[in-house]
Amino acid sequence: MTYYFSTTVRGDFESVIEKVIQLLQKEGFGILTKIDIQQTLKKKLNVDFNKYKILGACNPSFAYKALQAENKIGTMLPCNIIVQELDRDHIEVAAVNPLLSMQAVNNEKLDGIAQEVRNKLENVINSIKSEE
Amino acid sequence: MTYYFSTTVRGDFESVIEKVIQLLQKEGFGILTKIDIQQTLKKKLNVDFNKYKILGACNPSFAYKALQAENKIGTMLPCNIIVQELDRDHIEVAAVNPLLSMQAVNNEKLDGIAQEVRNKLENVINSIKSEE
Repeated sequence: MTYYFSTTVRGDFESVIEKVIQLLQKEGFGILTKIDIQQTLKKKLNVDFNKYKILGACNPSFAYKALQAENKIGTMLPCNIIVQELDRDHIEVAAVNPLLSMQAVNNEKLDGIAQEVRNKLENVINSIKSEE
Repeated sequence: MTYYFSTTVRGDFESVIEKVIQLLQKEGFGILTKIDIQQTLKKKLNVDFNKYKILGACNPSFAYKALQAENKIGTMLPCNIIVQELDRDHIEVAAVNPLLSMQAVNNEKLDGIAQEVRNKLENVINSIKSEE
């Protein structure tokens, strides 16, 4: 079991991000946070990095169930989806595998929730590829 | 090994958050994201929840090293610190243990980085308690 699901598509960086956000919304996830890694590293360290954004996605119903089952699970929320430019034509999209991060928590009430969230994130990754 | 470090302090919710942010800054972390769980759950699901915020903390130098060693590590960044009100006088602060989340990645180049970030986050949690 790997810690992420990923796919690589052709296209423009910002358009791929928009597509990812739409697909996440279809699966019930809102975007709570957006981090621009390229911009942050330039600003803080003055280094050049490829285009790289981290989207923090949250499905409120699942988050609520998870927080009720395990009140420190917020240390692992939201679920991250990264979008990075590998080269001018290739954009990689990768979503965290929540089953792996939840394993460490060792609370059986979370197992079903993590499995459902995992399936939804995998659907998003598979849909990006098939819509290309 | 647990997936978080935590401490409970007395005090006002917002003041504790300010203190946590200052202590994180001392250890070289900036706050890239802030999620208000109470507000999000009220807005999206119309349910009442305790005061609960997730701070996304990032030490740029360590993040840069980690990203160079493992380009999908952004699925696990930033490091989260949660602050929640247990009751009117008791605020719990918990930081994710990056060693556990990194274990799943299985890249030995990350081991030293995760250990150093872990120590810094543990310092933050210990300092909150001792400054009380």
